[in-house]
Amino acid sequence: MRLETATWVEVERRLSAGNAVALLPVGAQEQHGPHLALATDTIMATGLAERLADQLDALLLPTLPYGETWTTAGWKGTISISFNTLVALTTDIGAALAAHKVAALIIVNGHFGNSAPLEQAARALITQHNLPTMILNYPGIEQAAAAVCESTPAAPGFYHADEVETSVVLALRPDAVQMDQAQPEYPQFPPTFGATPTRLDTFNRSGVFGDPRPATAAKGEQLLTLLTVSALSVIRAFLAEHIR
Amino acid sequence: MRLETATWVEVERRLSAGNAVALLPVGAQEQHGPHLALATDTIMATGLAERLADQLDALLLPTLPYGETWTTAGWKGTISISFNTLVALTTDIGAALAAHKVAALIIVNGHFGNSAPLEQAARALITQHNLPTMILNYPGIEQAAAAVCESTPAAPGFYHADEVETSVVLALRPDAVQMDQAQPEYPQFPPTFGATPTRLDTFNRSGVFGDPRPATAAKGEQLLTLLTVSALSVIRAFLAEHIR
Amino acid sequence: MRLETATWVEVERRLSAGNAVALLPVGAQEQHGPHLALATDTIMATGLAERLADQLDALLLPTLPYGETWTTAGWKGTISISFNTLVALTTDIGAALAAHKVAALIIVNGHFGNSAPLEQAARALITQHNLPTMILNYPGIEQAAAAVCESTPAAPGFYHADEVETSVVLALRPDAVQMDQAQPEYPQFPPTFGATPTRLDTFNRSGVFGDPRPATAAKGEQLLTLLTVSALSVIRAFLAEHIR
Amino acid sequence: MRLETATWVEVERRLSAGNAVALLPVGAQEQHGPHLALATDTIMATGLAERLADQLDALLLPTLPYGETWTTAGWKGTISISFNTLVALTTDIGAALAAHKVAALIIVNGHFGNSAPLEQAARALITQHNLPTMILNYPGIEQAAAAVCESTPAAPGFYHADEVETSVVLALRPDAVQMDQAQPEYPQFPPTFGATPTRLDTFNRSGVFGDPRPATAAKGEQLLTLLTVSALSVIRAFLAEHIR
Amino acid sequence: MRLETATWVEVERRLSAGNAVALLPVGAQEQHGPHLALATDTIMATGLAERLADQLDALLLPTLPYGETWTTAGWKGTISISFNTLVALTTDIGAALAAHKVAALIIVNGHFGNSAPLEQAARALITQHNLPTMILNYPGIEQAAAAVCESTPAAPGFYHADEVETSVVLALRPDAVQMDQAQPEYPQFPPTFGATPTRLDTFNRSGVFGDPRPATAAKGEQLLTLLTVSALSVIRAFLAEHIR
Amino acid sequence: MRLETATWVEVERRLSAGNAVALLPVGAQEQHGPHLALATDTIMATGLAERLADQLDALLLPTLPYGETWTTAGWKGTISISFNTLVALTTDIGAALAAHKVAALIIVNGHFGNSAPLEQAARALITQHNLPTMILNYPGIEQAAAAVCESTPAAPGFYHADEVETSVVLALRPDAVQMDQAQPEYPQFPPTFGATPTRLDTFNRSGVFGDPRPATAAKGEQLLTLLTVSALSVIRAFLAEHIR
Repeated sequence: MRLETATWVEVERRLSAGNAVALLPVGAQEQHGPHLALATDTIMATGLAERLADQLDALLLPTLPYGETWTTAGWKGTISISFNTLVALTTDIGAALAAHKVAALIIVNGHFGNSAPLEQAARALITQHNLPTMILNYPGIEQAAAAVCESTPAAPGFYHADEVETSVVLALRPDAVQMDQAQPEYPQFPPTFGATPTRLDTFNRSGVFGDPRPATAAKGEQLLTLLTVSALSVIRAFLAEHIR
Repeated sequence: MRLETATWVEVERRLSAGNAVALLPVGAQEQHGPHLALATDTIMATGLAERLADQLDALLLPTLPYGETWTTAGWKGTISISFNTLVALTTDIGAALAAHKVAALIIVNGHFGNSAPLEQAARALITQHNLPTMILNYPGIEQAAAAVCESTPAAPGFYHADEVETSVVLALRPDAVQMDQAQPEYPQFPPTFGATPTRLDTFNRSGVFGDPRPATAAKGEQLLTLLTVSALSVIRAFLAEHIR
Repeated sequence: MRLETATWVEVERRLSAGNAVALLPVGAQEQHGPHLALATDTIMATGLAERLADQLDALLLPTLPYGETWTTAGWKGTISISFNTLVALTTDIGAALAAHKVAALIIVNGHFGNSAPLEQAARALITQHNLPTMILNYPGIEQAAAAVCESTPAAPGFYHADEVETSVVLALRPDAVQMDQAQPEYPQFPPTFGATPTRLDTFNRSGVFGDPRPATAAKGEQLLTLLTVSALSVIRAFLAEHIR
Repeated sequence: MRLETATWVEVERRLSAGNAVALLPVGAQEQHGPHLALATDTIMATGLAERLADQLDALLLPTLPYGETWTTAGWKGTISISFNTLVALTTDIGAALAAHKVAALIIVNGHFGNSAPLEQAARALITQHNLPTMILNYPGIEQAAAAVCESTPAAPGFYHADEVETSVVLALRPDAVQMDQAQPEYPQFPPTFGATPTRLDTFNRSGVFGDPRPATAAKGEQLLTLLTVSALSVIRAFLAEHIR
Repeated sequence: MRLETATWVEVERRLSAGNAVALLPVGAQEQHGPHLALATDTIMATGLAERLADQLDALLLPTLPYGETWTTAGWKGTISISFNTLVALTTDIGAALAAHKVAALIIVNGHFGNSAPLEQAARALITQHNLPTMILNYPGIEQAAAAVCESTPAAPGFYHADEVETSVVLALRPDAVQMDQAQPEYPQFPPTFGATPTRLDTFNRSGVFGDPRPATAAKGEQLLTLLTVSALSVIRAFLAEHIR
Repeated sequence: MRLETATWVEVERRLSAGNAVALLPVGAQEQHGPHLALATDTIMATGLAERLADQLDALLLPTLPYGETWTTAGWKGTISISFNTLVALTTDIGAALAAHKVAALIIVNGHFGNSAPLEQAARALITQHNLPTMILNYPGIEQAAAAVCESTPAAPGFYHADEVETSVVLALRPDAVQMDQAQPEYPQFPPTFGATPTRLDTFNRSGVFGDPRPATAAKGEQLLTLLTVSALSVIRAFLAEHIR
């Protein structure tokens, strides 16, 4: 059920059936190179969440289109919200779901920088609102990328505006990709990367990390299928723990 | 320019041309009766903002799909964020725009309850970030409704899940309307309405205020045209004051 | 009962009788032209609240003499407190009343800018402290002004340092009026007024909106009588809902 | 100059003369035994501040009638605001004064519990708003009490609803005293008093600390005179440091 | 029991015995003249707390080595945390103890500036976490200093880098004292001291208040013994009130 | 230079030499099985920081002995401070260092749960206080553990109360280890681990993750040496970027 187009009557009916699970996609408005849409993370999180919602008969919430993107704020078009704002926003949403007796919340996160604030929100929802909450940060993406893609990531587990992301967006929203602008960049990461807060534009020019050129919609479809399978596996374990 | 599908290169180019204005639609996830989508305010604000963006050559930001909907939290499917969260969220977005040297921000608000927090955010953006900010709460809607619609509103200036809103959604997203479920309700407002915080489900059952049955897509189109004209008039005055 | 001069023993006795209602006047320290006291809103809210307290056998709390007056901060002598400070202040006061088992709180607001923060405080008191709370923003003032006054307001429903306010202060505190300094001003409101936060001194020089010259104490007395009647009507409905 | 009855024109004129000093009385709404008004601290702070304002040609601000009275919240009629609310409130007021180019702020505090939050506000005003700020906690009161009064305080430097306070209120507002209800109480202070937060009603019944019976208006007048002299001495030193 | 070197198994065993009391030393990182360590207050609070823990069979928590030292921030090496941070920090610690069913918390404070924030934390712990909490600010220090020391304090009750503190550090950590650098300073306190927030380096050069030269370890030992006795007396009264 | 035992005169002298770097160890008060001290992370962070300070001629700050240990709060003796408190605390400390013109701050973190809040503090220090800040989370620990230890970790990169930590504490503070209590535990991690906030005591009994029995002080010494080398490498790169 898509909560955007549903009516309150339909939601009430679904909730009264019990054990309703909600899915919240969280994206970002962030640079993704000269060839990919600024809403790439939003598109990907939404696309994955739609597939999961269909499999799980879950309530699909409207996607949050802004995330915590401090690291890419140096490129035009990136619009970051703060750590605390993202915590507050997702905590408010979860609290409303808990008040409606939703049984569990699954956050489908499309952007790495959101992970830490979402973890704080999840803790608050679990301890203060008694709402089981999990966060999916593309589980299984490293295996899926290795299985499907040809190019090497710019760093282990680092997929940004590369073959992986470009393929998935090609599969979901081809109008959001300009393949003729796709160019590779393998930047030199500074030795202090990960140890000190670092804006990515201090060592990367184009916003691309890796090589998007081999991307295809077919690969994107395969990636989505693999990500869906991995995600469902974790979700089923989570629901088995929390929903009787 | 739609910021969701644009790339950072395109945004940078547009910004370097100077005097770029940004449009931020703010919606809500809120009950709109048994026949209208929960995302009605999101749909309407987005639809109006798209027309304005086209006229103004403005940067259209991703729509915020959650708003401050305390008054309808009693119906299932409504998901309210708090006053302070909405202030923080829109202030963060505006601050990011100011850092990118956007010249002005126009918030296209689709939900009455958002007005007060958006006002606070606008003040902060003006005084702390030097970003001229205006908020459009459907200017001219009373005149437009009177000119286009047949039914009487449930209260003066109060349009919710009625002929006005149903018509606009029919024009923009017919898949989000179930006309066969449309039924009128003219509730008795309590005498203290407006003087004490009041949840609307304490005196309304269906979530409809007025009569949605005469709604048509054609009326919705007319309403949008009139709202666009009124909005453009205020916007041009605003830009004349702030953009040289 | 005036809480300022009462003793705790008297308050305890009154509370033990049950169903005690508290009245909190909220004013402002704000420019009111060259002829009216900076505390005009404080004087008016207090004067109205005293009459209501007498009619209702209510506990009259000390008046808050500072309000949220961002819009007039450009004139010397205006002292504004922030939105959040006013929310905190009135929430604290209400929480203390709730702890003492006061049955309901009626806020008599003398300044328009206070309305939005008072609404937030009232919500917190209702939902978190179980204290029925209402806010009176001079109910019936438009009808009363039309019935009593000769001059035209500077804008519909906009009464500031004009015949209405000057008359009421003449009735309550003639020492706070300098009629020889009273001069009219009918400023041109900018077309974006209401759509973007606007400091009033950007389009008004004297601080007067309208024409205070026809003001008299007799008119002020009539206005107070009408405002009291209107307020009592809403209050009785409120108490009927909440006090058994 | 009383800011309540002054106009903005008069304030502007006074400010343009330079070196304007503002006085802010801070009171409390707090039990003071069966014979003294709940607003005793407000009355006393205001009375002292009026005398100081006359001597100093200072701007006298409206008195804050609520303070931080956690320790007496057990008695009916006490209405405490929180530590942080009082900090925010006085910081906002000082910030507004600084924006108007007031040269210094003198807070005349009438209640012991306000001292710590006022200290925090003063630090913020000094360091963030560049406003020299001082807080007068009845300087010289111990010497004045010893010189004028007959009864022994309930504890050294502890004057509450006793001969000292009762005398001062008799001098300032005799309508706020009921001498026929005045009875002494010399409670046994617990040995941990001062080391652990202690509500006073855990060891005191009437709210009186000491013996109010010997109080007279004449003594109150003498006390006020002595307090005024002591306060002026500190103020002149303060102004000598900060006003050239 | 020292919580730093204990294991969770040992703590669990001790807690299951019931009535466990925790001791939290709070120090500061603050200048103490050219001869005494910056951690002087930390050393002293820890030393006193260790003796108390041994007498009381209490849980000794790790010492907080930072405090609120706004007044000495002008000297290099002083590192102050803010009022609110110290409140949050000690409230968090107390809340964790309350969750573990510790029966009471005794804070051994080594720095005057910490007193006010610790009082706020203690109130929160008492009212919100139901944890009896007391704060020891060196009870009996004036009597002990008078009994043991030869030099005069720089002001009544003001002991900083003088004979008192130097003696105690000599007794506890002689490596933290450089007696050859010890020089007296008896500054002239400004007449507004105590009435306006004052950084101590505005009227003191060396950071010493008084005369440290007569200090000896033997005096320090005597002071610690006397302080321990005084503290135990207050603690036993506190525990008698709260622990059955 | 140890800031605890140094005097302000010594710090001032060191700062005037320019380019002073500060080291802040951050530990935790957290269960570490039946054989290791609750302050294990504090001991390890301090031990590593001392070696680094000696190599770098840096200012060694007092260690923070409390961290964010939400995941182990179920065991007695763990005392967690909140995410926001840790952010505030370290931001305050860094701000004080920046005011003293310290050139850079290196945080030596001993506990995984501290990483995310320290990252937020580092961002604030970099952007708001212009203080280059880095956080060392035991760089190179996986390689060092693999090179020195015999036992297998309970999960990749997960070292808690195991051979690694036990060896290091044996090297630094043998009094904080009870080897006769050391027992292995290789818990079954739930399939949702990492995807939903999980308290570790829901699937681990003893608090040990892995096998501490092969631990020796000699291995601890080797580990410290390797960690020091890795840390110095990152630090030198960091200083090369920020200190001229």
